[in-house]
Amino acid sequence: MRSVYFLSDFGLEDPYVGVVKAVLEQRAPGVKVVDLAHALPPQDLRRAAFALFEALPYLPEGAVVLAVVDPGVGTPRRAIAALGRRAYVGPDNGLFTLAWRLDPPRRAFLLQEVPPPLPQGVDPLPGWTPGSHTFHGRDRFAPAAAHLALGLAPEALGPELSPQDLLRLPLALTPGPEGEILTFDRFGNAITTLLQAPLGGWVEVGGRRIPIRRTFGEVPEGEAVAYLGSAGLLEIAVNRGNAREALGLKEGMPVRLLRG
Amino acid sequence: MRSVYFLSDFGLEDPYVGVVKAVLEQRAPGVKVVDLAHALPPQDLRRAAFALFEALPYLPEGAVVLAVVDPGVGTPRRAIAALGRRAYVGPDNGLFTLAWRLDPPRRAFLLQEVPPPLPQGVDPLPGWTPGSHTFHGRDRFAPAAAHLALGLAPEALGPELSPQDLLRLPLALTPGPEGEILTFDRFGNAITTLLQAPLGGWVEVGGRRIPIRRTFGEVPEGEAVAYLGSAGLLEIAVNRGNAREALGLKEGMPVRLLRG
Amino acid sequence: MRSVYFLSDFGLEDPYVGVVKAVLEQRAPGVKVVDLAHALPPQDLRRAAFALFEALPYLPEGAVVLAVVDPGVGTPRRAIAALGRRAYVGPDNGLFTLAWRLDPPRRAFLLQEVPPPLPQGVDPLPGWTPGSHTFHGRDRFAPAAAHLALGLAPEALGPELSPQDLLRLPLALTPGPEGEILTFDRFGNAITTLLQAPLGGWVEVGGRRIPIRRTFGEVPEGEAVAYLGSAGLLEIAVNRGNAREALGLKEGMPVRLLRG
Repeated sequence: MRSVYFLSDFGLEDPYVGVVKAVLEQRAPGVKVVDLAHALPPQDLRRAAFALFEALPYLPEGAVVLAVVDPGVGTPRRAIAALGRRAYVGPDNGLFTLAWRLDPPRRAFLLQEVPPPLPQGVDPLPGWTPGSHTFHGRDRFAPAAAHLALGLAPEALGPELSPQDLLRLPLALTPGPEGEILTFDRFGNAITTLLQAPLGGWVEVGGRRIPIRRTFGEVPEGEAVAYLGSAGLLEIAVNRGNAREALGLKEGMPVRLLRG
Repeated sequence: MRSVYFLSDFGLEDPYVGVVKAVLEQRAPGVKVVDLAHALPPQDLRRAAFALFEALPYLPEGAVVLAVVDPGVGTPRRAIAALGRRAYVGPDNGLFTLAWRLDPPRRAFLLQEVPPPLPQGVDPLPGWTPGSHTFHGRDRFAPAAAHLALGLAPEALGPELSPQDLLRLPLALTPGPEGEILTFDRFGNAITTLLQAPLGGWVEVGGRRIPIRRTFGEVPEGEAVAYLGSAGLLEIAVNRGNAREALGLKEGMPVRLLRG
Repeated sequence: MRSVYFLSDFGLEDPYVGVVKAVLEQRAPGVKVVDLAHALPPQDLRRAAFALFEALPYLPEGAVVLAVVDPGVGTPRRAIAALGRRAYVGPDNGLFTLAWRLDPPRRAFLLQEVPPPLPQGVDPLPGWTPGSHTFHGRDRFAPAAAHLALGLAPEALGPELSPQDLLRLPLALTPGPEGEILTFDRFGNAITTLLQAPLGGWVEVGGRRIPIRRTFGEVPEGEAVAYLGSAGLLEIAVNRGNAREALGLKEGMPVRLLRG
């Protein structure tokens, strides 16, 4: 049985993560589920795309990646499964854009034939209607992820799609020199789309020049610094501070590498 | 061995969830523990009761449901186990009120004979006293849940109680037309006690009439809408907003269905 | 295989916890990982030291305790493994000070020979550099913890160190009468270094005398009270309030037991 790596913006104030795990267990008894992150900022697709990119190289080949950050739930956005060296299950909203730079999908399927889990072992309540238009993590994505974890045929999930037609966010990872701010982490560090951070050089953002060092501890407290982050992307920080606020940074702002 | 589904308001800023899991493993080696939610609002029994209701239909028959939201810890409130198609372990404070609408208990036991876990493999400290009056999740509920997960006789936990004598919150789920606001989710959506949301109708709350639709995306941003939530209860939301704040809603406020 | 008990300040807004678990699984397939806490206040070593102290007596002998609260990552602080009745893996920054009062290390090793995990099953990106100076949880501590979970020889991790040379925080747990405020929990209750709470006595802090009771519910709402907490240490609380704010308490403030 393949393991499921599960990422969402469900938070832990509600039982949604637990319900999805219960459905996975119901459909694929004994399946191993590893939580990647569940307190992602709600509906933030760039942040989720980055989280999947950062995790991906450490997920085993064959893993099922279940990702639910889904601002369009209840609208006609598609629910999909895509198969590369790993399997991907989630909404067709660009969430996997950066992960697929590392592991491009070769096949894709529309999740059209996936029966939702039915309540079991409960007394009927008058008027009660199971199912939902708002919780596809439980009703559609978890059953599809369980199906793939069991190694069953993806054709059973629904009609085949062209992997080229899957939605991507307009994000390009690049050695530079031009890039942009991709997202922020919870400390307010900016993650950029730049795939390198040449020591001794500079990065220009919002009219400032910020020195590139090996790590943020190499500048005095309160000063801005850029370095190669743990995902292999250039990051911009303020030592012991919040770069997003201190430098007025925003998603999508252009950044530019300058050689030293 | 039966699986344990674990819900609490312990949060993840402290090691309490991990300690409870360590005790479960100590008493029932190899037991599978699934987290339902641990960042529930502290001591909010209505919210916890709703979380258990939402999760319950997806938990397997035979599961052990361990729930610790316990404002009365250290007072004479009872600690109990109840047996329906699943087993329930927690304080006797009404926490399971809504879950038991779906899976009524047929037997119940007072947790009186459950020995607390003792520290193991540690050097003694001068004056140190193990055990507590404040952490029954570790000292009483986890050992009882492990006992039931192992399939051992519930009679060993303590004297039998009448399931009718267990405490319930004064909450009635109903097809309507009269109901009330049960609780809120973390986005400020109101969950009501109404078991239906007839399309084309209205729900009245606090002097307003709110239209019932299939999902919240069917009204413009900033407008109020009601729909059938993923638990099968009518919910009141503001599209891309916080209904609790925007509409001044409160727990227990009356709601009323109006046909379209 | 030994189980890994994992504590960090990584939070759940980023995928770091999940990535560490993926690396543990890659290096020690099938290893059981139990989360102790991941939303600890960032870089708060006293809080982390207390969390490990509170959990330790319930962790099985032989367990691998992986703890990553690491303000000095990227500086020359040492990465270490220490062996007592359990194995400890983390930065050499005092994090384990209180845990080692209960389970003193008999041997210790510098994590010098631990190969970082390499990205697997991914397409190369131009300029991309794996590895990091900022994520030793993934690159150094997880591989070392997996090594010990497998029961492999600790000598392979790097040169042996004297356990006496490992860093400790200047914290002494004591029956009293003199102690200090060790840290706070998320409710603002103060945890002290005092190993007893004699009923009928008083504790003096910041010029106030606070009565010692069995539990916080034994004083009226809004009043200060001290009691023996679930870790076996005297705690100071305000019933239904926040003692840290209401009483102006701070880490390191002296506390003194007065007999009744």
